[in-house]
Formats: sequence, C-alpha cells, structure tokens
Amino acid sequence: MNLMMISLKLLLFMNLSIIIITCKANPNQQGQPEGVDFDQYAGYITLDANKGKALFYYFVESPQNSSTNPLLLWLNGGPGCSSLGFGAMEELGPFRINSDGRTLYRNPYAWNNVANVIFLESPAGVGFSYSKTSSDYAKIGDSITALDSYTFLVKWLERFPHYKTRDFFITGESYAGHYVPQLAHTILSYNNIAASNHQTVINLKGIAVGNGWIDDNLCTKGMYDYYWSHALSSDESHSGIEKNCDYVSGNFSNECIKYMNMADVEVGDIDIYNIYAPLCDSSSSSKSPGNDFDPCSDHYTKSYLNLPEVQKALHAKATNWSSCSLVGWTDSPASILPTINRLISSNISIWIYSGDTDGRVPITSSRYSINALKLPVQTPWRSWYSANQVGGYVVGYKGLTLVTVRGAGHTVPSYQPQRALTMISYFLNGELPPKN
Amino acid sequence: MNLMMISLKLLLFMNLSIIIITCKANPNQQGQPEGVDFDQYAGYITLDANKGKALFYYFVESPQNSSTNPLLLWLNGGPGCSSLGFGAMEELGPFRINSDGRTLYRNPYAWNNVANVIFLESPAGVGFSYSKTSSDYAKIGDSITALDSYTFLVKWLERFPHYKTRDFFITGESYAGHYVPQLAHTILSYNNIAASNHQTVINLKGIAVGNGWIDDNLCTKGMYDYYWSHALSSDESHSGIEKNCDYVSGNFSNECIKYMNMADVEVGDIDIYNIYAPLCDSSSSSKSPGNDFDPCSDHYTKSYLNLPEVQKALHAKATNWSSCSLVGWTDSPASILPTINRLISSNISIWIYSGDTDGRVPITSSRYSINALKLPVQTPWRSWYSANQVGGYVVGYKGLTLVTVRGAGHTVPSYQPQRALTMISYFLNGELPPKN
Repeated sequence: MNLMMISLKLLLFMNLSIIIITCKANPNQQGQPEGVDFDQYAGYITLDANKGKALFYYFVESPQNSSTNPLLLWLNGGPGCSSLGFGAMEELGPFRINSDGRTLYRNPYAWNNVANVIFLESPAGVGFSYSKTSSDYAKIGDSITALDSYTFLVKWLERFPHYKTRDFFITGESYAGHYVPQLAHTILSYNNIAASNHQTVINLKGIAVGNGWIDDNLCTKGMYDYYWSHALSSDESHSGIEKNCDYVSGNFSNECIKYMNMADVEVGDIDIYNIYAPLCDSSSSSKSPGNDFDPCSDHYTKSYLNLPEVQKALHAKATNWSSCSLVGWTDSPASILPTINRLISSNISIWIYSGDTDGRVPITSSRYSINALKLPVQTPWRSWYSANQVGGYVVGYKGLTLVTVRGAGHTVPSYQPQRALTMISYFLNGELPPKN
Repeated sequence: MNLMMISLKLLLFMNLSIIIITCKANPNQQGQPEGVDFDQYAGYITLDANKGKALFYYFVESPQNSSTNPLLLWLNGGPGCSSLGFGAMEELGPFRINSDGRTLYRNPYAWNNVANVIFLESPAGVGFSYSKTSSDYAKIGDSITALDSYTFLVKWLERFPHYKTRDFFITGESYAGHYVPQLAHTILSYNNIAASNHQTVINLKGIAVGNGWIDDNLCTKGMYDYYWSHALSSDESHSGIEKNCDYVSGNFSNECIKYMNMADVEVGDIDIYNIYAPLCDSSSSSKSPGNDFDPCSDHYTKSYLNLPEVQKALHAKATNWSSCSLVGWTDSPASILPTINRLISSNISIWIYSGDTDGRVPITSSRYSINALKLPVQTPWRSWYSANQVGGYVVGYKGLTLVTVRGAGHTVPSYQPQRALTMISYFLNGELPPKN
C-alpha cells in the first residue's frame, strides 16, 4: 500500500549532508552536567573502506553492572531518521537537551540504567552516517539497512570484544517495525554461517518494537479507526472509509482516498504523534526540564547536534546534521508479519509495545497486526504497574507479547520515561511487567 | 437499563448529614488569597418553610461587567453530588483548595470571568441542602430535583431581582445530563404559566451539558466501546459484549453481563474519569498548584468544607459535609433524548460537550446519543482553538452543537481550565468556538 508509505516518508524526510569520518572512544559530551558516572563512546564503524561507507554510533554503558548488563541496540524509524537525534537525545538516552540548545541535563530514567545501549544512525545517509560512493544512496531500502546494520554489529563487536558473548537485544520504534524484525532475522540467518566458520555469533535474545509500522494495510486501518474512536474525525469520514476502503487488498479507490483525506483534514493541526500533547509554540515559554516532555525538543536537538564543539566531541566532522534524511527508498515489504512469524519459531523473545496516545502508528494498528497472526492468548489482558500507578496493559500471546504504555505518544520514553524504563527492565529480564 | 444506573449511583453515594440553616450574603470565604475583586454570596433558599426544606447555593459575581454578564447555573451530577464540592472548588469556581485543606488559591480560568455563576447543591439531601421532613428523602429523583431547582431559581431571583431579566444559562456535567435538560424543560413549561400570571419569567437562553449521562443504553455501549478502542480492555471481552449485549432493548443477558464484568476488571485501577491521569497516591508528594489538576483534590475539598470556620463563613451550620449523598433515587428515565428533542423545538441553544479522556461517560457515549436524534449536520466537524492550540473539535447539528475538549477528563474545567473557559465564553456569546 503505497499511499501511506509515501506520506510516512514525506513527513519525515529532509535534506542529507555527507561528512568525513573519524572514530575514537570516550567523548566528553559537550555541555553535559557534572557527575557523569558512566562511559560513553561515539564514532564510526567503517562498513566498506573502498566505498567509504561508515555508520555512526553513540554508545553509553551502564553506571552500574556494566560488565553484566545486556547489550541493547536502539533504532529509530522514518525511514531515514536518526537514533542519535531522537532515541539518544529525546527519548531513552542518558541526557536531554536544555532549551538553550547547548547544555544537557540528566534523564533519570535512561535505559543505560539497565543495559549498555548503542544508538545507531542507519542506513548510511542518516545523520552522521555516510557513504562516499553516491550510487550507494540510489539503492537504500529495507534490505541494505538490515544488511549494513548486521555488518555494523559484527565489526562493532570486534572493537568491543568483551560484549561478544553478552545477551543482546534489539529495540526501536515506528518504521523500525521493519528494521528490528529484519535485522533480527538477518542476524539469525548469518549466525548459522558464522558459527560454522568460527566467526562472531551474535547472542540475540529478543526484540522489542514500539509503535511499529508492521503491516501497511492494517496499520492504515488502525490509524483511521483511532482517529474516529478518539474523536479526532467525523462520523461522515469514518463511515466513508468503512464503506469504500478495502484493507484486505489494499487497492484503495478514489472514493476511499477522498474520505481518508477528509479525515486527515478534520484532525487539524495537532501533534498526531501524541494527540493530547501541545505543539511547539514559539509564542509561549518552553517548559522547564522535568517530567513533561518539551514539545520544542526537536529544535534544541538540531541546534545542539550542529554545534561545532559537539560534533567534535562526538568525533564527527563539521556537518549540517538533520534529524531525518533520504528521499528514496527502494524496497519496503507491505507486511512484516511473515518475518515476525519466522522469528516466533526461532524462540527469541518478541515484544510489541505501544504508547496509547500516538495517532500515527496507534495501538489499534498494533492490535490489528498481531490479531492477523492468530496466535493463542496465553496470559490474558491485565494492567501492569510502574511507581504505584497503572503503567499500561499487557497480553501474552504464544510467542509474542503486547504491552501498552499508558499516556505515552509515539516516542514512548519521551512522554512516559519512568514507565518505559520499568517496561524495558522487565523485557530484558524475560518477565512480564509487574502486576502491582 | 438498571445495571449501569445502579453502578453509577453506588460509585458516588455516601452518607448524608442534615443541617440547620441560615442565609446571608457576602461571605468572606475562609482562607482565600488577597485581592479578591468580585462579590460572593452563600446560603440557603427555603423552598418550603413548613417542611423545612432548603437548598444551599454559592454565588460568585464577575469581577468585571457583572451587571451585563449573563447568569449561569452550574449543576453537578452523581446523582447526589455537590456542585459546591466539585464545580465550585475543583472545576470552574474562582478558587481551588491547597493541599493543606485550609487555604485557597485563585483559578485564573474561573467561569465568573464571563458570567455570574450560581453553584447549587441539589436536591435537598446533597451537601448543605436539607429537609427537616425525613419523608422528603424517600421520593428523591429526577422529578423532585427539576421541580425544586425551578422553585429555587424563582425564589433566588426574588432575592437578587436585578438578575430577573438577565440572559440565563444552565450548565452541568455527568448525571446533570438529566438535570440540565429536565430543568430547562421545567422552566419553559412554567414560564408560560408565569407569564400569564405576571410572575417571574426566567430568561432561559441555552444549556450546556458536559460528559452527560443522556441515554442508559447508548451511554453504556459508548463506555465499553471506549474501553476497547482506548486499549483499556481485551479483544475477548469486546467481542463478547458485541455478540451478547442488546443495546436496543437494553435487556442484558447474563452472558452479556459476564463480558461487561470482564471488561471492568481488565481496565484495572485507573481513574476512569480521566484515563491518563494519576490516582491520588498518598505515598508520593501531591502536585503544587498550577495547571496540572491535583488528583488528591477530593481530600482537600472534604477537609476544607468541614472546617467549622469555613462552614460559618458560608453561612452553613456545623455539619459533616460529604461530596456525594443519597442512597435512593425513585425516578430516572432510561433516556433523556425525548426531552432534548422537545428543547430543540423551543429554539434555545443546546450544547453537548465532552472531555475526550473521560472513560466513564465518554465522547463515544455523547456521539451515539446525538446520532440517535438523526439531526442533519449544518457545520461539519472541525478543530477549534484556545491559546494557539487545538482545544478540541466541534460539529454543528440542526438545533444542537457537539464540542469536544481535548485532553480533558469527566470534570472538564479541572483538567483543561483554559480550554473550558474559551468554550463556555463562546457558548455564552452564541458562537461556535474559534477556528484559529
């Protein structure tokens, strides 16, 4: 279903800048507060020296139990958006950026409290990642992203060999609903070859996909149903969509598209990635750092990551960094459900989680996608707790777990950092989130 | 449909205390901040001196334009809950109560900015309102409430005669979805008699019902659909309800009730009146006064209104005040839609509004109820604005307007005070809320 894919891409795509690389360890992150008690690394892994293709990462170890905590890879979606700009600086990273766009403050609910976390800018062309061979950009898509991310991991483990046997998890959100299962599948496929060649076997234990774009048709249906059930659109557009849109074939008639467009207009100018959040409004003062996510954070991130001293500290040469890049995408399967099905039979842990106030890839989309797998329920729907409050809901299927995060938008750890940390802690421990 | 009515009542009913009355004007509200720039009145209107039946009110005039601003009556629901304890002290009144339970702070978005507001504790038996004739409590229900509230208004206007010809509006929420249309209908009926007898004609211009319980069956259907679409309940309970519950007849089978109960349990321990809000948690510090509504406000209100000096300032004798009372309710029509239909033909302004994060009487319930009226759409669904953000959505039907308030729970002005004030200002001006 091309319609939504196009809008998904157009929404996030911006211009691309290419930079020259260098790679060192232990950056002193510019503008960070006093008392940082963990190690940080940033730089490049060269995938192909001939082509000059390299991926940028930011790696944060745990303040405590770093030598035993698992290794976790975080991937943002888009496709073409930066895990550094979103995941690291606005979601689950150890710091967030103050409204001055220059200084950082500590995120008490950073995921490096429970894991050693790699933020990867992927594929080449995103953020600080690049290729010197311009033809590389002509074939960017899901396949290259999965393969290059796998190559990155193998080479990264050569640089950090003490992590080779560590429990490894892949997490990500949005279009990473493609990236995460595809990378997991690539790892499991290559692990067999690597094992027989005495090469690095990646110790993959599980994946967690947040508000993931899993199936074009079912996610689109979930989105318009969410609009209507959350009182963002009219009865007229909803019944028009119900009547005219064929989500089985995905061949949408002009009449169907007319009503989809009508619903899109009716929603109006809200942050569809968190339907109750304010938009960044330059006329009002921005929020102080705290529990409430500042809606202007994207601006602070762009300012911060474009400071020459920050790029230097991160071992990235001067460049015009932007949060999302790439304007072409050569391959994108209409559904990632077959991949998920294959992963289920491999017995790794699979969690689909969803912030329930996201309208772009909403909880309805995740539910419809999972339902299509027709998995039997093993643990019935129940609430789970974080800090004495219901953090959301969980239902365990055979081979897959669905977890919701109450009051969280598309970027779950931005809006509910404490609940997100509780959730990921239990995921990494192989347990369902707590009953009370 | 008795099931829901019972649960609605049980949920809110508490013990009742009866007090001796007195009635004076101009209380100096105990614990209020400096610089109060409007007049306040509190006390009783005796409905029946022989029976010793009297209703308690708290009246706040506007700081500016009080002599031209309209007169607005606010009614809380329950049935049996206090407009003083909820509406005045936690929603749209000029003050809210600090966590000390003794002092007040100013609500900058109080509705007396745009209207002179009466908060009425109704019927007798609620809050400070009482009857000395205990048999009065045996026949409490919708009819008595409407009739006594009408009698209250006529007598109140004798005490404040300069308001007799003022534009008059009735507002309220929840079970006031019964009270407000019924009182409006009572006023219009008696106005004809009053006019011919040269008695007081109440200048009723419009009504606004918030998250109103309008139709037992459609509101119940709306509630369970909201649970499911907002990811509070499972696919299993939802399909069980869909299959087994007959919302046309309202005769619910045991199988239907089994799945309703299942959904109720699945939702777990959240504030169903605002599904994303925290519960009052005595283990964590309560919020500071500000934009975020303190979930422990009910406790502060109970403390405050039970202070002897406060009861004295309000001209209410010492009593054990509680927010909700009454354990029996003799009459409650299954649907208030016929009453609303009659009001539509009287040409008063009718607004149904809804905070969209309320799960108890959700926006789905309001939409289903309005849809049953089969009114043609005159102004298509669109967003409206307050303080540069989308405040919610509005759709204009012939004779009735639906307005949603984005991010607001059951008690709309508690959670979105600025948006609620914008909305009510436009309502009082006879205009739809603004397009930008």
